[in-house]
Amino acid sequence: MKALVTGGAGFIGSHVVDRLLAEGYRVTVYDNLATGQRRFLDDALATGRCRLVVGDILDRDRLTESLDGSSLVAHFAANADVRRGRDHPERDLEQNALGTSSVLEAMRAAGVERLLFASTGAIYGEPDVFPTPEDAPLPVQTSLYGASKLAAEGLISAYAHGFGLQASIFRFVSILGPRYSHGHVFDFVRKLLHDPERVEVLGDGRQRKSYLHVDDCVDGIVRALRRDEAPVSIYNLGHADVCTVDDSLGWIARRLGFEPERRYTGGERGWVGDSPLVHLDCSRIRALGFAPRRSIRESVEATVDFLLDNRWLLDSRG
Amino acid sequence: MKALVTGGAGFIGSHVVDRLLAEGYRVTVYDNLATGQRRFLDDALATGRCRLVVGDILDRDRLTESLDGSSLVAHFAANADVRRGRDHPERDLEQNALGTSSVLEAMRAAGVERLLFASTGAIYGEPDVFPTPEDAPLPVQTSLYGASKLAAEGLISAYAHGFGLQASIFRFVSILGPRYSHGHVFDFVRKLLHDPERVEVLGDGRQRKSYLHVDDCVDGIVRALRRDEAPVSIYNLGHADVCTVDDSLGWIARRLGFEPERRYTGGERGWVGDSPLVHLDCSRIRALGFAPRRSIRESVEATVDFLLDNRWLLDSRG
Repeated sequence: MKALVTGGAGFIGSHVVDRLLAEGYRVTVYDNLATGQRRFLDDALATGRCRLVVGDILDRDRLTESLDGSSLVAHFAANADVRRGRDHPERDLEQNALGTSSVLEAMRAAGVERLLFASTGAIYGEPDVFPTPEDAPLPVQTSLYGASKLAAEGLISAYAHGFGLQASIFRFVSILGPRYSHGHVFDFVRKLLHDPERVEVLGDGRQRKSYLHVDDCVDGIVRALRRDEAPVSIYNLGHADVCTVDDSLGWIARRLGFEPERRYTGGERGWVGDSPLVHLDCSRIRALGFAPRRSIRESVEATVDFLLDNRWLLDSRG
Repeated sequence: MKALVTGGAGFIGSHVVDRLLAEGYRVTVYDNLATGQRRFLDDALATGRCRLVVGDILDRDRLTESLDGSSLVAHFAANADVRRGRDHPERDLEQNALGTSSVLEAMRAAGVERLLFASTGAIYGEPDVFPTPEDAPLPVQTSLYGASKLAAEGLISAYAHGFGLQASIFRFVSILGPRYSHGHVFDFVRKLLHDPERVEVLGDGRQRKSYLHVDDCVDGIVRALRRDEAPVSIYNLGHADVCTVDDSLGWIARRLGFEPERRYTGGERGWVGDSPLVHLDCSRIRALGFAPRRSIRESVEATVDFLLDNRWLLDSRG
């Protein structure tokens, strides 16, 4: 069995690579290394059953060639910078929607029919229903990131109906754990190492979020991979619990041994497109036996420990 | 007051142009004439307050220049060929999603904040709720056309939240009336003029659809233009009634004086992505005083009459 993982050198993608290798697949990692890290593939490449192709998903010919013999694509390449959408409003569309179109066309050309896709809870915008189920009322998009991922989901579903593709789509909360390399824990750890005395918090600190450990996340993905038969299956992947940004900052600071003074920028949202509450209804994936093994606190602490052990990552981002 | 109408030489777009002129706007029609028709603008250009720029919406510089002094954009340019999405799977994404991104960026560059957008009931895929409200459960896309329009809606909403745009989004059923130039009435009229004895019907003829006359459609659009104040307002625009494809074919044949034998290709759907039932809940727009003045049958008959008076259109499409 052969699989190709786009974004396979990234945070979540590289864990999917490891897991597919463990399941017996030969794996092609397809990654442009814009945010992916070769080091995340050290173990994978050492198996001898994994190869890395450095390429962009928009380079369709190269991608199609690289699919050679694969029966499965895990499409995890994305522009995942939800917060900075307004700084480059076309990047989300290009990387996430056009990129997905390119992946779908490459799959069609190569005759690959099975797809796993990394979507996001951001597609729910600011929902009215909590915990939010997969068939929530059609949401108004509040971020370019969410809009571009919803666009990608729509393309995938249309291909499933039009061309016989079979897709499993996962709407993630924020994922934490080893190889985590951007997001609020990353930012807080870096800020606190720079200045342990005081820290700026975007928003009022009371935004409530659900976080999931990457091992639990990959466990959910593999359950769906084994079981799905419908043309399109959509799953929320999150934790039954939520915590506030303040909770999370407290766990991070304590792990670092600091007691910083907190300064809040204020407002219910940390940035335009931030959601004051993220809490997904995960009954669908739980029906496949999914149950997170780590608490949110454990996931936050594991992430801090990883970053402390990998300071090169903290230094590598501007 | 100046307005720019993309796709302003098209079927619905040219009616929007006429109406905006009647409301006192100076109007720039921006159209690449791929499917638009110069003749649809004869009356508009004769007013002396309308100009035509032949350009593509993906040509952002030209579009931005053409916005000069406009306070309103009506974005009606689109690839509207829902049925042939599988023949050129990237065209919908390019024309509808990328095209909309280009329009949004041009508006941002030119400082234009008010947008009217032509979306479609196709974004509901095959809904479970009838009549289908704007906040129906998040649908799975069944056509590339619907997927690309939903992508465009998402981008517009994200821009409204991120950049202060104010948008009114209209989800149309199929629109009929003068200047109608593609769709099932067009196809049946052309087939019957070619062979009045027999006609092929895609599907089982029992698909139920809601159709709206273009004058009623534009009336709804202008009501929203006058009243909307929220960053994003979304309206279904359709008829309270539905008819079957068989009903519609009967009205068309009778109008032409023919009694053809019907041959059905069979199946609940006429093509991949066709929807067995389209019936939108239009309470929101009705709350603004909208009420269709023509029955579906009157709209079908008016369309047949228009096509008989404009046979050049029937001859112009492959």
